[in-house]
Amino acid sequence: MKSDIIVNDRRYQWMNRPVVVVCVDGCQYEYISAAVAAGVAPFLGKLLAGSGTSYLADCVIPSFTNPNNLSIVTGAPPSVHGICGNYFFDRERGEEVMMNDPRLLRAGTIFAAFSDAGAKVAVVTAKDKLRKLLGHQMKGICFSSEKADQVTLAENGITNVVEMVGMPVPSVYSAELSEFVFVAGVKLMERERPDLMYLSTTDYIQHKAAPGTAMANDFYAMMDRNLAQLDQLGAIIVLTADHGMNAKHSEDGQPNVIYLQDTLDGWLGQNRTRVILPITDPYVVHHGALGSFALVYVPEDVDAGALRERIAALPGIEMVLSRLEACDHFELPFDRIGDIVVVSRQDTVIGTNADRHDLSGLEVPLRSHGGVSEQKVPLMVNRQVKTVFPDRRWRNFDAFDLGLNLAR
Amino acid sequence: MKSDIIVNDRRYQWMNRPVVVVCVDGCQYEYISAAVAAGVAPFLGKLLAGSGTSYLADCVIPSFTNPNNLSIVTGAPPSVHGICGNYFFDRERGEEVMMNDPRLLRAGTIFAAFSDAGAKVAVVTAKDKLRKLLGHQMKGICFSSEKADQVTLAENGITNVVEMVGMPVPSVYSAELSEFVFVAGVKLMERERPDLMYLSTTDYIQHKAAPGTAMANDFYAMMDRNLAQLDQLGAIIVLTADHGMNAKHSEDGQPNVIYLQDTLDGWLGQNRTRVILPITDPYVVHHGALGSFALVYVPEDVDAGALRERIAALPGIEMVLSRLEACDHFELPFDRIGDIVVVSRQDTVIGTNADRHDLSGLEVPLRSHGGVSEQKVPLMVNRQVKTVFPDRRWRNFDAFDLGLNLAR
Repeated sequence: MKSDIIVNDRRYQWMNRPVVVVCVDGCQYEYISAAVAAGVAPFLGKLLAGSGTSYLADCVIPSFTNPNNLSIVTGAPPSVHGICGNYFFDRERGEEVMMNDPRLLRAGTIFAAFSDAGAKVAVVTAKDKLRKLLGHQMKGICFSSEKADQVTLAENGITNVVEMVGMPVPSVYSAELSEFVFVAGVKLMERERPDLMYLSTTDYIQHKAAPGTAMANDFYAMMDRNLAQLDQLGAIIVLTADHGMNAKHSEDGQPNVIYLQDTLDGWLGQNRTRVILPITDPYVVHHGALGSFALVYVPEDVDAGALRERIAALPGIEMVLSRLEACDHFELPFDRIGDIVVVSRQDTVIGTNADRHDLSGLEVPLRSHGGVSEQKVPLMVNRQVKTVFPDRRWRNFDAFDLGLNLAR
Repeated sequence: MKSDIIVNDRRYQWMNRPVVVVCVDGCQYEYISAAVAAGVAPFLGKLLAGSGTSYLADCVIPSFTNPNNLSIVTGAPPSVHGICGNYFFDRERGEEVMMNDPRLLRAGTIFAAFSDAGAKVAVVTAKDKLRKLLGHQMKGICFSSEKADQVTLAENGITNVVEMVGMPVPSVYSAELSEFVFVAGVKLMERERPDLMYLSTTDYIQHKAAPGTAMANDFYAMMDRNLAQLDQLGAIIVLTADHGMNAKHSEDGQPNVIYLQDTLDGWLGQNRTRVILPITDPYVVHHGALGSFALVYVPEDVDAGALRERIAALPGIEMVLSRLEACDHFELPFDRIGDIVVVSRQDTVIGTNADRHDLSGLEVPLRSHGGVSEQKVPLMVNRQVKTVFPDRRWRNFDAFDLGLNLAR
C-alpha cells in the first residue's frame, strides 16, 4: 500500500484497482436520463437504479471545456490552475493570448503526481489542444484521437494507436472522434491495465442534438457499451462532464445573440471597450464562437459600475459581475479576468460584433454553453458510496476524490 | 485610493472608512433575536429590520474559539492557517501540544497585510491567549482585556489602556472581560480612528446563560450600546461569532457526557487509543473541558473502520469520520487531526475519562459547543448589501470580505 498523494492541497488515496474518470464533453444530465429511458443505455440505467451512485454536481464557470477539464485533473478551481477559458487578454502586453499552452498552467495535475509516485497513467482526449495541457509533466500514455496517427513513444508514451483501436482517425467534427476515445480506453484497460485513466471526449454531438434525439441516443448507446466493458474489466468508473448544453435559439431556429461589442461601441464609441469571448478557439464550426459568457475590459475613465447596470438591463442577460465579485464567487484567476463579467440566460448567447461571427457552419439551430445555466452536470460512479454529508456541494472536480477516496 | 490587498489568495479592497469586525464568542443567533424581542438591543433591532443586512453563516468545525478566530482574521479555513483547536497531538514527537503559539500559525493575517501596506490597525481580545495569535506580525495596537494593565508600547502599540477605558481590569471569568473589549473599541475609534479594527470577546456569559435570560439580555444590551456608538462614529461594523452555544444537559441539570476514553479503554484495553479534546485549555471552569468534538488516535493494529462504526452506534453521537473525510469536509490540517473524528449531538458532550474532568466549577447546567450543532452563527453588517448570489454559503470567515468588499 503506497502512501497518499497530495495534489493542490487535496489528498488522494492510492488506488487498489484501476480508477477511470470519464469527462463527457457537454453532457447535460438529460442526455443520460433520456438514453436510459429509451432503453439504449442499459449499463447507465443499472447504475442510476442503484448499482452505482449518482449526483448532480456544479461545474466551473465559465462552463467551457478547458477550464473544467483542468479543474477535474487538478482537483482545483481556475483560481488555482489559471486556465479560465480558451482566450484571455493580457493586460500588461495588451494582447489576446490563447490559453492552450502548458506554460499558462499554474498547478500540477493528479496524473503528474501519481505517475511520479510510480502509478501507470493513461490519458486520452478527443482534441489535441487539450492533450498538451492534461499531459503536462506526467509520465505515461497520453494521446488524442485527432492525432492518433502521429503518436510517438517519446511524445505520447505509446505507438500504433490506430492499430490498437481498430478505427481510422476520425474527423475533428464527428461523433467518431469521441468514440475513438472510448474504444481506446477499453483497449488500454485490456492491454495495459493503467492504475489511473482519464478519457475526455468532444461535444460535437451535444452542440448538434438535443437529449433524446436519435443522434444523441446513438452517441450515449455507444458510450454505454464501452463503459460496460470497462466495468467488466474491474475498473472504478467515475463519469462527469465539463459543462451542460442548452438550446440558444428562438422558435424560428435563429440564435438569440447579444452582440455585446456592437452594443458597447454604440454606447461608448468604437472599441472603447474590449469584449473577449473565452469560448473562441480554432474549432468554431459547431458553435460559431457563441457562448453565454463574456469578459469586458473597460478603460479607466468609464464608470464600470454604471456600465454594469446598463448591461444588466439588456434582455437576455442573466448576471453582470464586477471582476472582484466574479473572481471571488467563481474562483477565477484575477489577472486573467476582465473588468466586467457578463453571463447570458439559458436561451441566449453573447457575441462581439455581428460581422465577426461566421454562422454559416451552423447546420442546425444553435446549442451552446458557457453560463450558469450549464453549470449542473452529472457525477456518477459505478459503486455504492456512503457519504456522511448528504448536503455536500459536489463539483465535477471532485471526480478523483470520488474515485480514489470514496468508492473503494 | 490604495491598491487591493491579497491575503491567502483572497482579495480585499482598501477601506474608504473604518471597518470594524466584531467576533462575539459563543453568539448563537437566538441571543440576538431574543435581546431584540425583549427591546434591550435597539441598534441590532434596527439592523435586523432592514437598516443593515443579516445572514446565517457557517463557522469552522470544530466550533471552537481559536480555529474560528484565526479563520476570521486570515479569511481561510484551518487547512490553510493550521489552528484546529487548543490542543493537538504531535504524532512525530508523541506529545500533546498546545496550539496558542504563533509558530504553529501557517498563514498571514489580514491585519498583518493591511498594516504592512500602511493601514492603522487595532485588535482587542478578551483573553490574552488569543492576542498573541491574532497580533502575529502585525503593526499597530493589539492588547487583551485580561492583561490590559500590562500593556507596553513595544509589545502592544499602546499605553495606559486602563485609563482610556475607565474600567478596572476584569476577572477572566466575567461579563466585564468582554465589556472591556467593547468600551476599548469605542474609545479607540474616538481617539485613534483605526482603518481596521477587530474586537473579540469571551463566551463566559453564553456558557452560563441561555438566550433571553436576564443575564444574557444584559450582556447583549451592553453590546448594543457600544455597537451603536461605533455606528455613530461612521464605522462599517460586521458582527459575527466564532461558534454557537447549546445546552448539553438532561432535564435534571446533569451534563450528558460520553466519556470516550473510558469507553475505548473498556473495548480495547487501557490507553490503547488516545482521545484528544481540542477544547481543553487553561480556562476550563465554565465548561469543564467538555465539548461536542473529539479526536481519537488509533494504533495500526486496530481496525479504524470497524471502530468508527462502533463509536457511531453510541447514543448521543452525531457523526464519526475518518481522518481523510474530516479533513476534506471540514477543511482541517491533516497532520493535526486524529485517525477518527467524533462529533456528538446538540445535547451531548464528549469527555476523556470521568475522573479527569473536574465539574465542580459548573455552577449552572452545562452549555457548550464544538459540534456541527453549533455551526450556524450570525453574520451581520450595518449596511444594506446587494449580493448577486442569494444562495451563497456564507462563512464567518467572510467577515472581512463583507466589510471591505461588499459593504461600501
